[in-house]
Amino acid sequence: MGETPYYDLVVIGSGPAGQKAAVCAAKLRKRVAVIDRPRMVGGVSVHTGTIPSKTLREAILYLTGFAERTFYGRDYSLKDKISVQDLAFRVTGLVERETQIIRAQLKRNEIAIFEGSARFRDPHTLDVEGPTGPFTLSGERILIACGTRPAHGDGIPFDGQRILDTDQMHRIDRLPRTAIVVGSGVIGLEFASFLAALGAKVTLIEQRSTILDFVDQEIVQALTYHLRALGMTFRLGEKVTSVGIEPDRDRVFAELESGKRVQGDALLYAVGRQANGDRLNLAAVGLEPDSRGRVKVNASFQTAVPNIYAAGDVIGFPALASTSMEQGRLAGNHMFGVSVSQVPELIPYGIYTIPEISMVGQTEEMLTAAKIRYEVGVAKYAELAKSLMLGDEDGMLKLLFERKTLKLLGVHAIGERATEIIHIGQAVICFGGTIEYFRDAVFNYPTLAEAYKVAALDGLNKL
Amino acid sequence: MGETPYYDLVVIGSGPAGQKAAVCAAKLRKRVAVIDRPRMVGGVSVHTGTIPSKTLREAILYLTGFAERTFYGRDYSLKDKISVQDLAFRVTGLVERETQIIRAQLKRNEIAIFEGSARFRDPHTLDVEGPTGPFTLSGERILIACGTRPAHGDGIPFDGQRILDTDQMHRIDRLPRTAIVVGSGVIGLEFASFLAALGAKVTLIEQRSTILDFVDQEIVQALTYHLRALGMTFRLGEKVTSVGIEPDRDRVFAELESGKRVQGDALLYAVGRQANGDRLNLAAVGLEPDSRGRVKVNASFQTAVPNIYAAGDVIGFPALASTSMEQGRLAGNHMFGVSVSQVPELIPYGIYTIPEISMVGQTEEMLTAAKIRYEVGVAKYAELAKSLMLGDEDGMLKLLFERKTLKLLGVHAIGERATEIIHIGQAVICFGGTIEYFRDAVFNYPTLAEAYKVAALDGLNKL
Repeated sequence: MGETPYYDLVVIGSGPAGQKAAVCAAKLRKRVAVIDRPRMVGGVSVHTGTIPSKTLREAILYLTGFAERTFYGRDYSLKDKISVQDLAFRVTGLVERETQIIRAQLKRNEIAIFEGSARFRDPHTLDVEGPTGPFTLSGERILIACGTRPAHGDGIPFDGQRILDTDQMHRIDRLPRTAIVVGSGVIGLEFASFLAALGAKVTLIEQRSTILDFVDQEIVQALTYHLRALGMTFRLGEKVTSVGIEPDRDRVFAELESGKRVQGDALLYAVGRQANGDRLNLAAVGLEPDSRGRVKVNASFQTAVPNIYAAGDVIGFPALASTSMEQGRLAGNHMFGVSVSQVPELIPYGIYTIPEISMVGQTEEMLTAAKIRYEVGVAKYAELAKSLMLGDEDGMLKLLFERKTLKLLGVHAIGERATEIIHIGQAVICFGGTIEYFRDAVFNYPTLAEAYKVAALDGLNKL
Repeated sequence: MGETPYYDLVVIGSGPAGQKAAVCAAKLRKRVAVIDRPRMVGGVSVHTGTIPSKTLREAILYLTGFAERTFYGRDYSLKDKISVQDLAFRVTGLVERETQIIRAQLKRNEIAIFEGSARFRDPHTLDVEGPTGPFTLSGERILIACGTRPAHGDGIPFDGQRILDTDQMHRIDRLPRTAIVVGSGVIGLEFASFLAALGAKVTLIEQRSTILDFVDQEIVQALTYHLRALGMTFRLGEKVTSVGIEPDRDRVFAELESGKRVQGDALLYAVGRQANGDRLNLAAVGLEPDSRGRVKVNASFQTAVPNIYAAGDVIGFPALASTSMEQGRLAGNHMFGVSVSQVPELIPYGIYTIPEISMVGQTEEMLTAAKIRYEVGVAKYAELAKSLMLGDEDGMLKLLFERKTLKLLGVHAIGERATEIIHIGQAVICFGGTIEYFRDAVFNYPTLAEAYKVAALDGLNKL
């Protein structure tokens, strides 16, 4: 066995957290190595998660002429028959492109890239099973950023085509005309809405009786309404007891505890994700992942072993690409003694359903529980010239502000570009601004951003 | 002659300035009347200006599959042959819709709407030439918000089809395959880019040797580059000496002082606009519009006659729908003794060319002239996952900040949704924030808003 390469930092996983930590350490002139499975540079985010699903979303919006239905009627579709190939063409191209961008960024920063699956031997040594044989890497510091995989329920006969998890959605051979989606978390809802926009009849099954509990309920109800308008059936408070293929034909069934039986061309199982912390032999360094494979860290993303850090989806909530990047950057600074501010408390959420949702700050439910006297200002997209031009008459933006001080407390949006314009409100909340800012600021016309002014005037008129 | 109706406020013109002033006064429980020409509720903004042109823009982007060219090649077009009817369908629908929205808003606020052309008799009385005869309106206060019309050059034989002004662009019978655009102001450039995106060969003729002098020159150069890539020819520093129709066939020609002769299927004359202040018989109240029909006001939008205010395009620069709305709102408050803040100095600009441009705050040229030591942080859209998904690889966002304090001084953007995301930077500038805000904030992923973080990190790396 040859000499073990030694690095200031070895990062396990090249997803958003791993990349940012690696680049950050490299900019501090540290020797850095990143390790990921073969052909997985970029991690799940690039290969089966965020990038493919959001690319799929844009392709669906374009190819179905979704927004154009406002102008040409509900049955309008740009392509008469959208094939998996039409969609895959866009996704494949973007995945390759993003992978190249990340590889180039790592190389530009002189970060070594290794392929293989890593396991701890001791706090500074990793045994790697590479595509051409085993090797060893050694690091002064190690960052665990190994991400997650879809959780697989017991007794569900996944075949990757008719019964599949969310990582397999990009590789199906044909689009289902009827689909069952089990699980109504963010990912389940996103895919369910994509399938519905493509014209599939979708049944969404969820064990709990509510969805998206952290989101403002008015926005959730609007989403539910629009998804129903796309033909989706919600089966909430229903437990799946068994899943299988009908013996006589190519149909999937799900049996529910209530006795109902649902059928479809495909079933997407989207019940949570399992962190990969269980695959690293953490016992060798005295760490133990929890039952869902997650690794515990302190506020500086440090595990109980001081030279071993963890960041990204593997540490659990909120498990977003955006927050993972921040965590990676902060971990990469902290481990080399560079003091940086913590991950801000004010985290925006983007849910890329069709229509999309975004929020930042507090919800009505949170303010009510905290007994803060607030008022609401609403802008309906149907009042905005820009949204009419874009064919979105259903969106809305909602500002929550303190009655007495007019201080902005929360912003909630559903509709076109919600994930973009939320950042205007985020800046105002962060600087402690009031809704008078929106009343007094000039907004480009026509824009969706103008919704802030309309909503602020609505709110002020209520006082 | 019947009794003259008397109002607390009579507004001449129902465009953005007039509407906002009227609604503002109505909310103060004043009796308000608005007067505009028949079928012109909403003003030029709705009928021939902002709304039709920006709707046209969205329709062109969709129908040409403009962004999709990145995926399917430069020759891709959704529709093989885009007709004027395809475009007019969208424009007509939106103009009607917006007109209804404005009418409804005026009615909801119990604002009387009169049709006709108004002329001053005295500071409180207007003679109106209505569609069914003359009548008189009387107001305690009067707001002049009568807008502008396209300036018509001497000796240019407008026929509304082959030689036309920008208000006539929405009524042409067929799309030109070659077009001459005279004038490279914002409106001229917008239409020139629309025609180029539709596949027309466009020659842009401008007397001055530069374009968009108030815009950051790096952005202007990027725009010029992209318009040339669409096949546009720039003839700057060239004066048009005559325009006409070729005698033997259906072609338009323009002769230039340099001796060049340019031909095309149509010529769009876009050399500035003339304010309608010259049509109000202002002499009757002792006011005199300038040579371009503009009315002079003080910082509170008051003319030399204390009860007569003016706002919107009729008072000149910047003559944007966005600023006109603000002016109307401020005038409508000031005239009834309600003190409000002035129009903020920080005005964003949105230029709806293809690709679109937006800016807020200072330019490099301004900072250099003021001898402020600044640094630049750039994000190229080609580095952003979201812009790749949207098919825009050419856009960029540029932050200008003070080297010493890191204070954000200006934001300049070209590309998809530039007019939306500029408002994030506007808020940060307005609150006196530094680019560290963008480094520390979490951005939804993928978004174009994320460009702020990429640009801030780029800027910080340069220090």
